[in-house]
Amino acid sequence: MIKDEILSVVRNVADFPKPGILFKDITPILQDPALSERLLDALAAAVPADVNAIAGIESRGFLFGLPLAMRLGLPFIPIRKSGKLPYETVAYSYELEYGHATIEMHADALERGHKVLIHDDLLATGGTAKAAAELVIKVGGQVAGFSFILGLESLNGMHDLTVYSRNITILAPC
Amino acid sequence: MIKDEILSVVRNVADFPKPGILFKDITPILQDPALSERLLDALAAAVPADVNAIAGIESRGFLFGLPLAMRLGLPFIPIRKSGKLPYETVAYSYELEYGHATIEMHADALERGHKVLIHDDLLATGGTAKAAAELVIKVGGQVAGFSFILGLESLNGMHDLTVYSRNITILAPC
Repeated sequence: MIKDEILSVVRNVADFPKPGILFKDITPILQDPALSERLLDALAAAVPADVNAIAGIESRGFLFGLPLAMRLGLPFIPIRKSGKLPYETVAYSYELEYGHATIEMHADALERGHKVLIHDDLLATGGTAKAAAELVIKVGGQVAGFSFILGLESLNGMHDLTVYSRNITILAPC
Repeated sequence: MIKDEILSVVRNVADFPKPGILFKDITPILQDPALSERLLDALAAAVPADVNAIAGIESRGFLFGLPLAMRLGLPFIPIRKSGKLPYETVAYSYELEYGHATIEMHADALERGHKVLIHDDLLATGGTAKAAAELVIKVGGQVAGFSFILGLESLNGMHDLTVYSRNITILAPC
């Protein structure tokens, strides 16, 4: 099972990035190209047939986001932190535990009505994925689903995302 | 020619990120999965047979860095900005035009003596690629080469990199 394979190599790092957080380190997956291929197979198998584009959230969502899009023959849309995309952008700001964050997408990144699947490495509270969904809508697209490698079940991040799409893939809930 | 294909879609954005800079926007490449595949073919064809791992520099070096490693069946090593990698890291600081920057690699990212190819999207002055090379050496690896999608010829960034390896691929000098 891909879930067991992933969880057997993901590294738990205590107190990162701050005390009390148990960080899930996916870099050991990247060390294993055969596992990376199987993970990509599993992500690709879960993408609905009518999806028009894959959006990946900076930075770790870039890792498997572009290969996923290429595997499916779809455009890849980078969602980046504020001030990183050079062309005309659309921005969305959201609340964090302390302060707020802004993410951006190029205004011409997708065609009106196109169905976009949002990819990131990890689903925690869902705050960033929700912001990405709002951004897709703001640019004129539709949210066709979400895909994550890991998902922290205790944080119940899926709950807020079902408003946008019930198609939520988490390869390895943990 | 892949060079012409790339340059025909890369977008020049004036005065980004600051006045006087003509930024090369690679996001239109990502919109075209067939072009992305041909670009990846060209990057892969230029990697020497004895390379043991591909290192990609955050964030845009993550885009084609992991697919390149997977295509070649090699481990992928993320090089990140300071404070982003959760496990034990090795850091390298370098001078920028104003101030300085620090990049990091996990201390256990590679085996001693392993030959690492460094990938990023764009070669400008070469400052970040040079820092990545120093980091590879600091962690115990050897620099097997560099690979870039674009290279700004007027900045002569290749010059500083030949100290580390003469194997420097730039798909589209411009």
